[in-house]
Amino acid sequence: MTKLETQAAAVKAASRVLAVAGTERKNAVLLAAADALTERRDEWLAANAADLAAARTAGMRDALLDRLALDEKRIAAVAEGVRQVAALPDPVGAVVRDVVRPNGLHLVQRRVPLGVAGIIYEARPNVTVDAAALCLKAGNAVLLRGGKEAIRSNLAVTAILRDALTAAGLPADCVALVEDTDRRSAAEMMELTDYLDVLIPRGGAGLIRSVTAASRVPVIRTGEGVCHIYVTASADLDMAARILYNAKCSRPSVCNAAECVLVDKPVAEAFFNAALPLLDSKHVELRGDAKLCNILGTRCREASEADWDAEFGDYILAAKTVSGPDEALAFIAAHGTGHSEAIITSDAALAERFLNEVDAAAVYVNASTRFTDGFEFGLGAEIGISTQKLHARGPMGLEELCSTKWCVYGTGQVRE
Amino acid sequence: MTKLETQAAAVKAASRVLAVAGTERKNAVLLAAADALTERRDEWLAANAADLAAARTAGMRDALLDRLALDEKRIAAVAEGVRQVAALPDPVGAVVRDVVRPNGLHLVQRRVPLGVAGIIYEARPNVTVDAAALCLKAGNAVLLRGGKEAIRSNLAVTAILRDALTAAGLPADCVALVEDTDRRSAAEMMELTDYLDVLIPRGGAGLIRSVTAASRVPVIRTGEGVCHIYVTASADLDMAARILYNAKCSRPSVCNAAECVLVDKPVAEAFFNAALPLLDSKHVELRGDAKLCNILGTRCREASEADWDAEFGDYILAAKTVSGPDEALAFIAAHGTGHSEAIITSDAALAERFLNEVDAAAVYVNASTRFTDGFEFGLGAEIGISTQKLHARGPMGLEELCSTKWCVYGTGQVRE
Repeated sequence: MTKLETQAAAVKAASRVLAVAGTERKNAVLLAAADALTERRDEWLAANAADLAAARTAGMRDALLDRLALDEKRIAAVAEGVRQVAALPDPVGAVVRDVVRPNGLHLVQRRVPLGVAGIIYEARPNVTVDAAALCLKAGNAVLLRGGKEAIRSNLAVTAILRDALTAAGLPADCVALVEDTDRRSAAEMMELTDYLDVLIPRGGAGLIRSVTAASRVPVIRTGEGVCHIYVTASADLDMAARILYNAKCSRPSVCNAAECVLVDKPVAEAFFNAALPLLDSKHVELRGDAKLCNILGTRCREASEADWDAEFGDYILAAKTVSGPDEALAFIAAHGTGHSEAIITSDAALAERFLNEVDAAAVYVNASTRFTDGFEFGLGAEIGISTQKLHARGPMGLEELCSTKWCVYGTGQVRE
Repeated sequence: MTKLETQAAAVKAASRVLAVAGTERKNAVLLAAADALTERRDEWLAANAADLAAARTAGMRDALLDRLALDEKRIAAVAEGVRQVAALPDPVGAVVRDVVRPNGLHLVQRRVPLGVAGIIYEARPNVTVDAAALCLKAGNAVLLRGGKEAIRSNLAVTAILRDALTAAGLPADCVALVEDTDRRSAAEMMELTDYLDVLIPRGGAGLIRSVTAASRVPVIRTGEGVCHIYVTASADLDMAARILYNAKCSRPSVCNAAECVLVDKPVAEAFFNAALPLLDSKHVELRGDAKLCNILGTRCREASEADWDAEFGDYILAAKTVSGPDEALAFIAAHGTGHSEAIITSDAALAERFLNEVDAAAVYVNASTRFTDGFEFGLGAEIGISTQKLHARGPMGLEELCSTKWCVYGTGQVRE
């Protein structure tokens, strides 16, 4: 066995103990970990300072340095997040179906942990704690493989989490960090089908695509979002302008931000009259089709083909006039990523058609796509937003980190 | 685009129409197909006769020829199966969660089709109809890739199914058959991530393992079953004997058949006194540990290491004495495949421990593992028995062929 296989086998063994640990014990670990994150913050900060120094020497950009950096306030927020996870209901053991068959067999389908989750992520050390806390609460052991830039920070905080497990009488290996952070270790993780029940990549589109393409462990694909706002002829145009502004500008870097607006031709000019003052306030660059460029003049440059599929992650908006719902639906089918799509309309029948026909994790009528989020949906937390259709779709909370098991109570039944 | 990509793209396009087709229209297709299977049975039988003749020339074994062969009775049973699927409730549109958030957003999580299912299977032409019927009822288009031995039968029956679709006003491409049956076409299907939402291999362990290992399309792994019956010291030994006999002998070739019995040492001799007359009636070969060989003498040969992991699929039973629940649970964790496991006991606390600690799709107390089946569990039908933990675990019926979608009704909400 390789070093990583040995480590993964230990995590798998620990997962069997964790899977049957009660709610109180899991919560005790989480609350102790939250306290220790504050009490032992100097250890975490010192390791983080070393990571930051190395990253600066290596020439890391300021934006990435900021994502890597910890301070007392960020650590307090991370600890508070762990306390919130402890306060959530335990998903394990819940009854999904309960049936007595004609032959007297009593079938109870219960929610159970998945087992071991592998998480491959990039340079944000808070992910180490967020992911571990959610996995633990759902009864899953977790094998974490963060980026090399954060390795010292991740080792320090993993030690804190493992101490909390030990203190509560659970195996430290319920949380383990892969120490090798070269590409080979990620590739090797993707082959650990004997030990990992699911692999969840968290990070940029490149990371997620490469893991989805290469992994033999089942993957949950998260995060890619080319989201549209479709403004129909019957829309309240002021509402549409406010929703587009929120969807594009409230946080352009996230996956539920809008990248493209589609507008019914008859209201295109009136809509942009309402929307432009808002978009101008953030200097949003518009890339439109020819018709829209005619209407908006120099305020809009002509979009390239690539712009219709781009996740800009920035104050850039693709914009296109459409002849009506047929064209809008076909365009979304061709260019959407199945994340979040919205229609702004006062036509209830058209709204239902849009809800039915758009193939995405979340489809909105008269609201911003920015709500696609575990907290906003009331799940209490999320480990990511699934854009695939198997297992979980949309924000993944604790229930989505579980599997099920059929427990069958008999009195000697045999099959004919 | 390759020929297969072009075909898959057409199936994907058809799936968008099928996904929003109503229950009545889907049932009309199924009932028309059931009628046509009977009315046009001569077409199907003629094609099947040609397949059988070619297979005989190629030297196919009798058991496989029997699986390939159709007759009027088998066709009637296939048609009746399609009528039963039509009679099942439509899973699409069911409300999974319904929440109004404090900001007034109304969230409805609805069950929706997965989209396009790919099925890779072997020489049984009835699978073509069974799989297509279940997929259609759940609103999924299906791309079928059967074995080369059944290609004429599959082409004939696919034509019948496609005619039923056309007659009901749905695209024929909701059901499509891959005409190339060489290995390359299966390998190419596993890469069609743009068109297939899930891939379900149906057949022997070799097929399932190779698809699971190679596919980039998400796979549902089905079927591998090394199932145990654990007979405890407190068991009703006559009940235990009847259950073991049923689990081993009622249909040894299927995945929910038992392959291994574990017996608490103090009752091993008494248990086999009760079980041997039943096992003898089917000439079951016993492969035991040394202790059991001592007890049973020449009736039992010593098991090899490989026997503890074997899916015999035959009248062969591995048998082992254990010191108690700890050893039994550890043995099942080491050698089980996560399919179906049973304990025979009169100790309710031990039964609960077994239900909690055994990590399998179905765990039984005092009943035969043979019940792990969509019909027996009341799902009405099944497309397979999932032994993985993501998406679906255990028998997969219509609900398990679905995904979900969040439909969000707003009145202008934007995110702070």
